[in-house]
Amino acid sequence: MAHTEFDIIERYFRRPPAPGRMPAVGVGDDCALIDLSSSSRWAVTTDTLAEAVHFHPGTDPERLGHKVLAVSLSDLAAMGATPAYATLALTLPRVDERWLEAFSRGFFALAALFGVTLIGGDTTQGPRTLTATLMGELPAGKGLMRSGARPGDRIFVSGTLGDAAGALADLEGAGGAPPWPLRLRLERPEPRVALGQAILDLATSAIDLSDGLAQDLEHVLGASGVGATVRVDRVPLSEALRTHIPYPKRLALALSGGDDYELCFTAPADRREQVFKCGHRCGVPVTEIGFISDQAGLRLLDSAERPFPLSRSGYEHFSHET
Amino acid sequence: MAHTEFDIIERYFRRPPAPGRMPAVGVGDDCALIDLSSSSRWAVTTDTLAEAVHFHPGTDPERLGHKVLAVSLSDLAAMGATPAYATLALTLPRVDERWLEAFSRGFFALAALFGVTLIGGDTTQGPRTLTATLMGELPAGKGLMRSGARPGDRIFVSGTLGDAAGALADLEGAGGAPPWPLRLRLERPEPRVALGQAILDLATSAIDLSDGLAQDLEHVLGASGVGATVRVDRVPLSEALRTHIPYPKRLALALSGGDDYELCFTAPADRREQVFKCGHRCGVPVTEIGFISDQAGLRLLDSAERPFPLSRSGYEHFSHET
Repeated sequence: MAHTEFDIIERYFRRPPAPGRMPAVGVGDDCALIDLSSSSRWAVTTDTLAEAVHFHPGTDPERLGHKVLAVSLSDLAAMGATPAYATLALTLPRVDERWLEAFSRGFFALAALFGVTLIGGDTTQGPRTLTATLMGELPAGKGLMRSGARPGDRIFVSGTLGDAAGALADLEGAGGAPPWPLRLRLERPEPRVALGQAILDLATSAIDLSDGLAQDLEHVLGASGVGATVRVDRVPLSEALRTHIPYPKRLALALSGGDDYELCFTAPADRREQVFKCGHRCGVPVTEIGFISDQAGLRLLDSAERPFPLSRSGYEHFSHET
Repeated sequence: MAHTEFDIIERYFRRPPAPGRMPAVGVGDDCALIDLSSSSRWAVTTDTLAEAVHFHPGTDPERLGHKVLAVSLSDLAAMGATPAYATLALTLPRVDERWLEAFSRGFFALAALFGVTLIGGDTTQGPRTLTATLMGELPAGKGLMRSGARPGDRIFVSGTLGDAAGALADLEGAGGAPPWPLRLRLERPEPRVALGQAILDLATSAIDLSDGLAQDLEHVLGASGVGATVRVDRVPLSEALRTHIPYPKRLALALSGGDDYELCFTAPADRREQVFKCGHRCGVPVTEIGFISDQAGLRLLDSAERPFPLSRSGYEHFSHET
C-alpha cells in the first residue's frame, strides 16, 4: 500500500482534541481554524521546504525566503483568511551571512506586501530545512473549507496551471533553462490572498493547488462527499506553457503538476457572474472548468466529452511502498 | 566574531511590525505574545530538534515525540501561559511505521497531560528534523517576560540543574551509560507549566533554562538592564549528579550545561515565602540562588564569597567563527 502524507496524518496524527480545545477545523484542511474568542477566528498553517526535496541546493536564497512564506500564505488564501503573524524555524548547515541577508530580504519583502509580522522562531544547525507557521484572521464563524462542495456547484480555478511544473520539468530533465515566465511561477509564486478573501461569502469550498489539480480536487471531493466532472480543455494554460511544452504533456502538467499555488474553489452556478467579478477586482483571471455531481469520483473529459487519460501521479511527499 | 543564534536573530530577523499587527512581545523572549482580542492574549513559540545536533540517530522515537513538545511547553511555562494548540512539522527520511507509531505515542501522551490539541502540520521527506509550534493562553495584559528583573529582586530556579548535561557528557564521552535519573532528565524533560502559571502575578521576570543557567540568566540581565550575583553553592544539584559526577565538574554542568528545562525567575525579596509556597503547591522544589543588582554583569561566587571561575561555553546553536 502506498503511504501518502494523507495516510500518515490520518493514521498517526488525528486524535481527539483536549478538553475545551476543540478547533472549529482541525487536521486535514488547508489551515486549522480556532475560535480564540467569541469575536475572532484564527487560521493556522505550517509548511516545510526541505533542500533537495522542495528546492535544489544552490537555489537563490531570496527566492526561498519568498517561497517559504508564499506557500503558507496560499494556505491562508484557501481559507479566505487575512494574513497576520508568522514564526520561522530555520535549520541551516552553517552561518552564511550572504545567504541569511538574501533569505530575509525575500521573506520580509513578501511579508510587507501581505501585512505579516514575524513574531518568533528558532534557528538550529543541520541540513537546510525551512518551516513557516502562519496565523491569519477571519470574521467569527467564517472560513472556506474543503468540505462544502454541493452537487450542481461549478468548479473554478484562478490564474493558469502547470507553469511551475513546466519549469521543473525543464530543470530536472533535458529541457535546459526554462523560459522565465515559467521559472518565475516556480520560484516566486503569488499567493491569491485577495481572491480568497473576496470569495469568502460566495464559494462553498476551496483548496490551494500545491500537489496538482487532480489530486487536490479529489481532496475536496472526498471531504465534501461528492464527485466532479472537469473539462480538461477549459483548464487555463499560460501562453508560455502553450508555446514551450507540446500537447498533451502540457495538459498533464496542468492537471497533475504541483506548485501552482492557485486556488480551486466551488460556488453555486447562479453565483458565477459574481465569482468572475471577484477575480476581475483582484486582478486574477478566474476560469470555470467543471461541475460537482453526486456521482463519486473525478471524471476528466476532453473537448469531445471523451474520458481524458491521466496517470494518478500528482506530487506526493512520500511515495514509498511497503 | 562569534555568530550566535542571538546575533542572527538580531541582525536578520528583527524588523518593524506590519501595520495593526504589533505583538505585545515580539522576537527575543521565550514566546511572542499577541493580543488577538481585548480579552485574550496568546503566547506563541516554535522549536526545532534536528538529528545529530539535538539528538543522536537511533534515539527512541517515543522520547523524541515527548521532547519536541516538552521543549515548547517549557517556553510557554516561562511566560506563565496555559498550553492550548500545537502544529507539528516533521521532515523524515522515509515512512517508518514503527517510528511514527512510537513518536506519535510520546507526543500525544504529553499533549494529553497538558491539554494540548494538535491542529495541523506538515510532513515532508528529508533529513530528520522536528519542529513544533505551540500556542498558549494568558489573561489579558499578563505574561512573564525576560525584561522585568529589578535591583533587589531575588533569583530562583526550579528543580535541579545539570542533570541532562551530566547524561549527555556520559553519552558523548567515555562515561558509558549514564545513571537512569540523569538520562530521564535528558530524554523526558518535565516542562514546569503549573509553576509558570502559579508565579504569574508574583515573578518580575522568567526564562526557561535550555542553554545553561549562566547564559540564560544573562539574557534576563540584558533584557532587564541589570546585573546579578549568584551563589554557586546554592545551585540545586540532584543526588544522582552529586554521586555520579565529581566537583567542580558537576557545578560547571549545572551552570553552563543545557537542556534543563527548569524555570529561572526573579521576584521581590518580600515575596520569597509566597514563591516557595507556589513551588510546594506545584510539587516542584524552588531554590533561591542569588539576587539582582544595578551593577551590570553576572557574578558567580562560591560559599566563601570568592569569584567562581566558569568558561563561557554554555550551549550555542552555532559556534562558528568568521
